[in-house]
Amino acid sequence: MDDPYNAFCDHAVVFVEGVSDGPLAGLTFAAKDLFDIADYRTGAGNPDWLMTHSPASRHAAVVETLLAAGATLVGKTHTDELSRGIFGENPHYGTPVNPKAENRLPGGSSSGSAVAVAASMVDFAIGTDTGGSVRAPASFCGLYGMRPTHGRLSLDGVVGQSPSFDTVGWFARDAELFARVGAVLLDAEFPDYLPECLIFATDAFAAADSDAAAALQPVAERLSVTVGASEWRPISPEGSPEGLAVWRGHQSTLQGREAWQMFADWIDQTNPRFGYEVSEIFHTGAGLSDRRVAEAKEAWPRIVAHLDAILAPGTFICLPTTPFVAPLRGQPRSATKALRGRIVALTCIAGLLGAAQITLPLGDVDGVPLGISLLGRRGSDEQLLGFARQLAANL
Amino acid sequence: MDDPYNAFCDHAVVFVEGVSDGPLAGLTFAAKDLFDIADYRTGAGNPDWLMTHSPASRHAAVVETLLAAGATLVGKTHTDELSRGIFGENPHYGTPVNPKAENRLPGGSSSGSAVAVAASMVDFAIGTDTGGSVRAPASFCGLYGMRPTHGRLSLDGVVGQSPSFDTVGWFARDAELFARVGAVLLDAEFPDYLPECLIFATDAFAAADSDAAAALQPVAERLSVTVGASEWRPISPEGSPEGLAVWRGHQSTLQGREAWQMFADWIDQTNPRFGYEVSEIFHTGAGLSDRRVAEAKEAWPRIVAHLDAILAPGTFICLPTTPFVAPLRGQPRSATKALRGRIVALTCIAGLLGAAQITLPLGDVDGVPLGISLLGRRGSDEQLLGFARQLAANL
Repeated sequence: MDDPYNAFCDHAVVFVEGVSDGPLAGLTFAAKDLFDIADYRTGAGNPDWLMTHSPASRHAAVVETLLAAGATLVGKTHTDELSRGIFGENPHYGTPVNPKAENRLPGGSSSGSAVAVAASMVDFAIGTDTGGSVRAPASFCGLYGMRPTHGRLSLDGVVGQSPSFDTVGWFARDAELFARVGAVLLDAEFPDYLPECLIFATDAFAAADSDAAAALQPVAERLSVTVGASEWRPISPEGSPEGLAVWRGHQSTLQGREAWQMFADWIDQTNPRFGYEVSEIFHTGAGLSDRRVAEAKEAWPRIVAHLDAILAPGTFICLPTTPFVAPLRGQPRSATKALRGRIVALTCIAGLLGAAQITLPLGDVDGVPLGISLLGRRGSDEQLLGFARQLAANL
Repeated sequence: MDDPYNAFCDHAVVFVEGVSDGPLAGLTFAAKDLFDIADYRTGAGNPDWLMTHSPASRHAAVVETLLAAGATLVGKTHTDELSRGIFGENPHYGTPVNPKAENRLPGGSSSGSAVAVAASMVDFAIGTDTGGSVRAPASFCGLYGMRPTHGRLSLDGVVGQSPSFDTVGWFARDAELFARVGAVLLDAEFPDYLPECLIFATDAFAAADSDAAAALQPVAERLSVTVGASEWRPISPEGSPEGLAVWRGHQSTLQGREAWQMFADWIDQTNPRFGYEVSEIFHTGAGLSDRRVAEAKEAWPRIVAHLDAILAPGTFICLPTTPFVAPLRGQPRSATKALRGRIVALTCIAGLLGAAQITLPLGDVDGVPLGISLLGRRGSDEQLLGFARQLAANL
């Protein structure tokens, strides 16, 4: 397969045909190289991970589900190393090219999956989202992207990093197909859906670049009109981007500690080659004090209670998926590091809440895609997908 | 050239003939891949350094000196990444094999140079020594190795890491040739030499493994008999291995800060791939507080004054070069990290003093080499070489 955007892994040229009948029959998909495919080694974006692991004995559970629904797997896709990145930069295999803006980053860590879908090389793709790894590339590549309710989809056969936050998500170009895939993965039929109220998170919009916020303004108004009832209000106690940054700090602490626990032994045994930034992320996680982790653990249920009180049943929070469009490629780390923090200040919200979030490819800044997100209560996955499908049908 | 011990860099198959007459005519040598060779890129043990640098316009100064003395350069040799390591482990190019103990590490960072000499593939080799990078591999591979007085040999055309401690050193299998190379590099003829007194550093011997200390005991006695006057005494104010560990802490702080300053911009621009341990060393350097650096800077002249008072003219300090023989290959980082600290607790002494140190391949533990070192005042390079030559002639 020609791969002009460097979406696919060379180390595993995979083709697994789905069953001939089923709701996804005739569709093709790609899987991030964190998902086990029987008889292939899972690379997780790092050549030393690949070298130190044996071929998988069976497919990851969600891959099995998709194959059984008729979809055909046509490749494994690039990821940030061990999914620890938000931009899709991979110094070993090269950074996939964003088909919607070739001089910009694709987003990550589910970079190759997003790129493969955005380039129409597959009908849909699966990725993982721990701290934004489906939502950010979906926003940057102009796709529908889903982070389901935490625990809803099986992580069996998936290289995770942080059990408290790891989820399996997916990408598609249109809402109808996106919902069809969702119905298979969630194992649920669902009707179209109209929420009772939208809450536009003023602190999240204020955290975005002004051109991004301006680009999403008319989209927000359309959503508002569609739903009828809406409210503009902050969602953090501080009511400002700084409040979201505090949440991000807690989430990064919890994720950083868990990811270090997950990989510390392997790193100790292997001394793997990482891009400097990934090592730095791990080293920061390794150095987190127990006190800092305890603070984050203590804050976490308070954050959940705060958001639960805002998010009544039938209500969605609306926010920019990312605070800006895809950054330019080739920037120094000193420039992108701050950008990473700003993205995670928005994506951490669903993570902390364990809630479902869907990003819709409805915005752009000068033709460069930008996603807008709806975040629902835990278990609202079908409602989000039903609303997205209905919206698209009426746009 | 066959390279069964993986000493040489594949990316630069170098051959530069020396002049036909000269004190080193007919001899071959290798240069660590930190030394510029005209028309070749210097790789510094890291593929991303190699990729982001242009071919050198001229030879490093010491290479020029050796060629002009008749020696022929036959290859560039592997190094720890950016010379930041003491064991010779390189995850990109593979760890060179110690010809004297193939299941053990070669030592580093001048790993390939030591291995090439130990395997008799060249007559001598040059390396660099910032925190022990010539002395440790010389000890582990059973070679003569020299760290000259700081500032004595030109670093022109050499990838340095820490200007306060960087030096150019060299390796050879026998003392006579070792001294001949020294005469060329130091640009000085020198007679044999007998020091007036040897000080056996009891705290340094106590820092060694018991089998290593026991193996060096008869060597020390032979040296003592040869010189006539000797004294067993501690050299640190505390008089214990802990005192040397305090010095190591200061030296690592100073070196860590300087090395971070040296490479921070390049790391920022490049996000290079490093083995995790090297990233960790850099990240630790990046995180050093100004207060910690100020403490080390304040302690440094006190350490120098303390050692200067012990090291009268005509006196050498004798100590184990490394506190143990070459560690086994393939150990986890958690095992080797503590070993690294213990090595540097001995090698930091000459570094802090800016003094010359020669390691002599006179010890072994069950046939595995172990070096014993003589450390002289700043400028005692010729005396050390003259003593080593005389010792060897009389052994």
